[in-house]
Amino acid sequence: MATRLSSSRLYGHLWGTAETDALFDEPAMLQTWLDILVGLARAQASLGIVPADAAQEIAVRARVEALDLEFVAEQTRLTSHSTLGLIRGLQRVLPEGAREHVYVGATVQDITDTWFGTLMRDVGAIVWRDLRACEARLLELAAQHRDTVMAGRTHGQPGSPITFGFKVASWADEVRRHVDRMREGRDRWCAGQLAGAVGALAFYGPDGPELRGRFCAEVGLQDPGISWLTARDRVAEFGTVLAMICGTLARIGVEVYELSRPEIGELAEPAPSGAVSSITMPHKRNPEASEHLDTLARLARASSAVLVEGMVGGHERDGRSWKAEWIALPEVCQLTAVALQLARRLLDGLEVHPEAMAAAVERFGGLGSERVLAGLTTRLGRYQAQQALHEVLREQGTTVVDLPNALARRGLATAEEVRGWGTSAGVETAGRMVDGVLSRARAARAAEPESWR
Amino acid sequence: MATRLSSSRLYGHLWGTAETDALFDEPAMLQTWLDILVGLARAQASLGIVPADAAQEIAVRARVEALDLEFVAEQTRLTSHSTLGLIRGLQRVLPEGAREHVYVGATVQDITDTWFGTLMRDVGAIVWRDLRACEARLLELAAQHRDTVMAGRTHGQPGSPITFGFKVASWADEVRRHVDRMREGRDRWCAGQLAGAVGALAFYGPDGPELRGRFCAEVGLQDPGISWLTARDRVAEFGTVLAMICGTLARIGVEVYELSRPEIGELAEPAPSGAVSSITMPHKRNPEASEHLDTLARLARASSAVLVEGMVGGHERDGRSWKAEWIALPEVCQLTAVALQLARRLLDGLEVHPEAMAAAVERFGGLGSERVLAGLTTRLGRYQAQQALHEVLREQGTTVVDLPNALARRGLATAEEVRGWGTSAGVETAGRMVDGVLSRARAARAAEPESWR
Amino acid sequence: MATRLSSSRLYGHLWGTAETDALFDEPAMLQTWLDILVGLARAQASLGIVPADAAQEIAVRARVEALDLEFVAEQTRLTSHSTLGLIRGLQRVLPEGAREHVYVGATVQDITDTWFGTLMRDVGAIVWRDLRACEARLLELAAQHRDTVMAGRTHGQPGSPITFGFKVASWADEVRRHVDRMREGRDRWCAGQLAGAVGALAFYGPDGPELRGRFCAEVGLQDPGISWLTARDRVAEFGTVLAMICGTLARIGVEVYELSRPEIGELAEPAPSGAVSSITMPHKRNPEASEHLDTLARLARASSAVLVEGMVGGHERDGRSWKAEWIALPEVCQLTAVALQLARRLLDGLEVHPEAMAAAVERFGGLGSERVLAGLTTRLGRYQAQQALHEVLREQGTTVVDLPNALARRGLATAEEVRGWGTSAGVETAGRMVDGVLSRARAARAAEPESWR
Amino acid sequence: MATRLSSSRLYGHLWGTAETDALFDEPAMLQTWLDILVGLARAQASLGIVPADAAQEIAVRARVEALDLEFVAEQTRLTSHSTLGLIRGLQRVLPEGAREHVYVGATVQDITDTWFGTLMRDVGAIVWRDLRACEARLLELAAQHRDTVMAGRTHGQPGSPITFGFKVASWADEVRRHVDRMREGRDRWCAGQLAGAVGALAFYGPDGPELRGRFCAEVGLQDPGISWLTARDRVAEFGTVLAMICGTLARIGVEVYELSRPEIGELAEPAPSGAVSSITMPHKRNPEASEHLDTLARLARASSAVLVEGMVGGHERDGRSWKAEWIALPEVCQLTAVALQLARRLLDGLEVHPEAMAAAVERFGGLGSERVLAGLTTRLGRYQAQQALHEVLREQGTTVVDLPNALARRGLATAEEVRGWGTSAGVETAGRMVDGVLSRARAARAAEPESWR
Repeated sequence: MATRLSSSRLYGHLWGTAETDALFDEPAMLQTWLDILVGLARAQASLGIVPADAAQEIAVRARVEALDLEFVAEQTRLTSHSTLGLIRGLQRVLPEGAREHVYVGATVQDITDTWFGTLMRDVGAIVWRDLRACEARLLELAAQHRDTVMAGRTHGQPGSPITFGFKVASWADEVRRHVDRMREGRDRWCAGQLAGAVGALAFYGPDGPELRGRFCAEVGLQDPGISWLTARDRVAEFGTVLAMICGTLARIGVEVYELSRPEIGELAEPAPSGAVSSITMPHKRNPEASEHLDTLARLARASSAVLVEGMVGGHERDGRSWKAEWIALPEVCQLTAVALQLARRLLDGLEVHPEAMAAAVERFGGLGSERVLAGLTTRLGRYQAQQALHEVLREQGTTVVDLPNALARRGLATAEEVRGWGTSAGVETAGRMVDGVLSRARAARAAEPESWR
Repeated sequence: MATRLSSSRLYGHLWGTAETDALFDEPAMLQTWLDILVGLARAQASLGIVPADAAQEIAVRARVEALDLEFVAEQTRLTSHSTLGLIRGLQRVLPEGAREHVYVGATVQDITDTWFGTLMRDVGAIVWRDLRACEARLLELAAQHRDTVMAGRTHGQPGSPITFGFKVASWADEVRRHVDRMREGRDRWCAGQLAGAVGALAFYGPDGPELRGRFCAEVGLQDPGISWLTARDRVAEFGTVLAMICGTLARIGVEVYELSRPEIGELAEPAPSGAVSSITMPHKRNPEASEHLDTLARLARASSAVLVEGMVGGHERDGRSWKAEWIALPEVCQLTAVALQLARRLLDGLEVHPEAMAAAVERFGGLGSERVLAGLTTRLGRYQAQQALHEVLREQGTTVVDLPNALARRGLATAEEVRGWGTSAGVETAGRMVDGVLSRARAARAAEPESWR
Repeated sequence: MATRLSSSRLYGHLWGTAETDALFDEPAMLQTWLDILVGLARAQASLGIVPADAAQEIAVRARVEALDLEFVAEQTRLTSHSTLGLIRGLQRVLPEGAREHVYVGATVQDITDTWFGTLMRDVGAIVWRDLRACEARLLELAAQHRDTVMAGRTHGQPGSPITFGFKVASWADEVRRHVDRMREGRDRWCAGQLAGAVGALAFYGPDGPELRGRFCAEVGLQDPGISWLTARDRVAEFGTVLAMICGTLARIGVEVYELSRPEIGELAEPAPSGAVSSITMPHKRNPEASEHLDTLARLARASSAVLVEGMVGGHERDGRSWKAEWIALPEVCQLTAVALQLARRLLDGLEVHPEAMAAAVERFGGLGSERVLAGLTTRLGRYQAQQALHEVLREQGTTVVDLPNALARRGLATAEEVRGWGTSAGVETAGRMVDGVLSRARAARAAEPESWR
Repeated sequence: MATRLSSSRLYGHLWGTAETDALFDEPAMLQTWLDILVGLARAQASLGIVPADAAQEIAVRARVEALDLEFVAEQTRLTSHSTLGLIRGLQRVLPEGAREHVYVGATVQDITDTWFGTLMRDVGAIVWRDLRACEARLLELAAQHRDTVMAGRTHGQPGSPITFGFKVASWADEVRRHVDRMREGRDRWCAGQLAGAVGALAFYGPDGPELRGRFCAEVGLQDPGISWLTARDRVAEFGTVLAMICGTLARIGVEVYELSRPEIGELAEPAPSGAVSSITMPHKRNPEASEHLDTLARLARASSAVLVEGMVGGHERDGRSWKAEWIALPEVCQLTAVALQLARRLLDGLEVHPEAMAAAVERFGGLGSERVLAGLTTRLGRYQAQQALHEVLREQGTTVVDLPNALARRGLATAEEVRGWGTSAGVETAGRMVDGVLSRARAARAAEPESWR
């Protein structure tokens, strides 16, 4: 069943990637759970809690393709228990001697929270890779367009000039901070769970902590030191960082969306061959990817908010938190993965139109007014300079202004002087900020591993 | 693929019902879309826009089981267009003469917004039915326990007595308001969409409005009068009402959850036979359904918030809004449907323990303090009465107090008088409020149809 | 203290109106609370619960300006009780005989929920008035610009033509639905609360319900029939409707924001004389009001979400819900009031530039492609027509296309024929939809009262 | 005006602390802004951009108490400009020669974002201090109650035993992770802003970056390296970490709230002398602080979500983001500060009732079932053991069970054996986890500064 459009054959690719689908699709998810059961059995065997050959049998047979998933599903519904169906399904494919040694002393969250640990690790690795790939491309674009002058825009209105590289460098700088966050959080997030009934690990007696350590090592996760059944900050933080990453990508997307309006025409997203923007309006070329980045960010925010809400859990276990997480954590993972994939494609093929950028600077002659103001300021002081400019602009309307002559007429400066002030686009400092971002990012990249694991 | 746990074979039943799965599962969804295309072709044939026999062919052949969904999916990805894959898939099963007459002049949102209209209608009908069934059961419980005295609790602390029927009547009253909301919103929500490229219906020339009217009639929806491509308040409102319904059910769930703590033991949810609360703690019986109602409400709130955010759409069409709705609207529908199903079961089998309720009233002797305060007030005035009671309670500790003797020792009243004030539980008025709720609800129910359609 | 920027002297006007400040400013709020105490005393006197002359004294003396608010504040902190400080402050200004007769048998929520009832009534009346004023102006604009042709835009890209009146009519239609919601919800929202300790009204004995009825009448609110201490759907619904109204206003604001980009220049918001958009860039004119409408909508959504969350309250009273409401309900009221005020000003002074609109239609020659497609469809069938147009557009680039000659060169139609198809802007139907919105709205307006009360 | 209840004299203390009020109250806020202007002037003087004596005059005279705030407010409204009113007010108190040298080349966000930097620094320091104080108290409680046996509870139902120290250690561990987050984020958050019109710092020519560095040093903040006018991740992250901290405190609060139900009676929050829980129910003692922690967390989440939404900003400046931040960032700061203050008080005076804890363990005899299950497992294998226990429990009811005799009757073990298995509460491992948390936290505390700055 694909009872969610996000799981559908037609539209699934908009809400997840092939790579993350391979993590989240039900059989894959169940295989991860089985692998966790194997890790548990192995760790238990190493401590003599279960027989070594039982653990060996479990390791060999705990394959999702061997299970009767209809039976597993039916038992899940019958028992109203989250993992008992799976256990019973697994027991069926185990030799009798091994059946009693599955899932010994563990509880649902030991499986599903450890699954979360692996998700945060594996999705984190994808995010790390794609985020750094985005960064690499952004650094390239920033360097390439370090001096490509364009209108800065504030409140949607063209203002003083910037360079496109400067705009991109601001994105890159923000992405770098996300890379930092991913690095800082890694060990907090990639932790296993072995807690038993109420977190006290009583079932195992004194072996508990040692068993947890070995179990976590088996599944490739950190030992959390203490059960975190209702301490959900790890999950909440991970989800929030992902939602913030989506926010940054949406910021980039919205910028491309706006600047690819034909009235502006300074950027365009790559048009995949075969794509049809509009059937009824065949002339159109919609910024679909850019737009979708914002859509994904909205949904990611909504899911991450559920995770933060889930931090307020009750007592030693609270199904309200972790069942909501079952939905919200995978969701934010899927959404972020597809957003990163989309952003990479968008940035890789991004069309930049420097001539349109230059034309806008030219068109909105007043753009240089910040520099003219600076020039006048040296002469009149700031507020009188401002006052003078305001008066000129009010007289002439705001979009096209011949400042040199207007100021000359008022005897405030010669037209030549004004032209001199305004000649330079005033973007040298922007370029230097680009250089700073580039050098800091390159140094950081050189000092860190390519792979998150 | 079940790339969402909510779509999974094992856990899907926690996040949707068989009935709503049958609406949302991809083939069912696509059949609805095809039915909408059929409705469009028929309406167009009736106006001579397409040939009648083409419409007839479309009506006969537009069956999801006839389509090659792999081809449809592939074309969807290839064109990056939301419906073109489906159209191409449909054209393949149509005779040549009919192929050009599918989806004439329509756009994606004409299909998907009309689909939303049918969803709101069909899910609305389920909600109406189940909400009223909940109400019926609540009215029954309220009547039955009109005089079942129990401790009222405020801030988690036992206070003055109420009756269990009074508590239930408050739920029923809230449910009734939701029924009212569902009735009021129905015609707003169950509207079709035929807007064309930008909402102006230019493709059809002067036939446009008439065509829209006939199309809406074909698919059983209201004619909206004007395109609503970026007027998303219908969807936002529907989602919010559903999220609020989930909130009410969660309120009921949380109450059962708390009152079924063994330390309280006043309520218990029915235990389905076969259910296993805890493997590691076999003595436990967890309030799973009650708990899950709160989980569902959290997720429903998150999705409905996305819908309200989507109201701020741009221009004549904004994919950010409606693509987010594609995920969020079905989600809130599924979650609400399963919440209602769960609530019905919970209420149908709810175990009520009047003896435990009575014992708590007895145990927290101070419960009658509101009545004693009223009695003392007639004698000392309110604030002196309050002061006296405070002093007594501070001396004696708060949970078990022998008020009659304590007040007698202070000469404020005889022990007998105090006992007289406190004898009555003071719940007569609660009972009368129950009666009021019952009679209003019964009158309203008698005056309204059983079915929402 | 103005410990919130929203309460500050400098910026308060951005986050509330003079009119709503007059409701929410602390002394005004306290006066409302005092008035509620007066209403209670009067109702109680009418039933002999308190002496008539005590009620009379209370009515005369319960004036906020008579109270020592420092004392009230200090007692509030000392007792950690929400209303006891106020009661003690009031008692100080009452003659001894009346002191015991204040707030008899009532609890905090009786005051504050009733306050909520008055807020929903009084703010609702403001919303009703301003929403209808917005509607009136929108209807005017829609009528005036019924035939002002402009580019429809989808996904940020110019598409087929619409008229400005059509765009405005879509806003008006959405506003009308909000007016309907306000009417439908009125009686649900404007309810008083008299519940006593746990909702059972035990303190008053059999007089309880009658007293509540009289009390509600005294304060001008509906009798709720049953206590609603933890039934918070009223508040949640009211807040959500307001947040949705803000969403609609933000949709309008965003549209003005985007269309007033100088590259588009089709709309401009009125510039208040004296306003300075930018000190450093004196040529700029920022769409401040339009932008702020979106800011307000974000904050309103956040507060309304808190209200919906609060529906999941515990037992007979739950401070988590109503204390969060104390912040969130007034907030959403204030934000909506200022959004409406801002929207009225924006719409009243909105500058519309039909010539820029016409120029855009001209500039993006392809705009007529929907009509050309319709023309070609009659000749080639829909999908071959679409295919032909796509090929032409792909060859020529998307923004400026000479369709007549291009299609003629391919022998698909004469240039004249193509010009004929494209001549009409195809906006007649848009105009007719405007007419429909106008006539429905006018009829509805004529049938409803000007004032909400 | 106190147009927000959170700013009110009566209730302000519930929504902020004296310490944070002193940061956020309007005059204090304005003084910070003035200090930033002083820092700017000084940095500019050091580079010869403004005369040294003008900077000196500004430093001396930029005192909020010297300004005519009515004039400032009026000019703010008149100009619709966020800082021009303040500038004009300041100029009035400056000697003529200094007037032109205020705010030279800067824009609103240079002031307000730098203000945000100082807020994050100053509030961060408070959070760091109070979070560590909470941690210190939690470590103390954890050590003290390392072996205080109590019932673990899952899904609201008593399960296997834990110790109270173990519960507290889980809180402490979570708090420690927040301390880590605060340390990691510090340098990201405490950054100044000097960006000029569009971020390019054109006004200052080549001096720009050097000026920014000196300005940031003057105001005690990091140099951001590049303008971050629309790169709002710093603010979003800070707000989210604070909301997560509130979530943790709410988790503690909810636990106290639930465990102080008189039916459980294991914890109680300290009752401030003078506090009146309930007027109408004088025997009650409400867990007000615990409850309020959850209220605060809800509001903090709502505000932090606005900050994350604000990351999707447009172009070089977007008022929608930063004006929403004006409300949401201070709000989340205030709420977190008061939550921490409240949590400190709550924890400092927390009443722990080990005897009630022990009684619950005794009362719910089945609590030892996890240990009995472990014992039976060694004999029967896990699933047969589980099956046997289930049957016994089903027969006998779930709350009070005589497991030793029941199992003996079935011949599964002697009563003595069963007693032996169940004798130990099985909390040794819990104690060892406490030790681990204590030693890790103590080491971390010893290695880090007391003060965040």
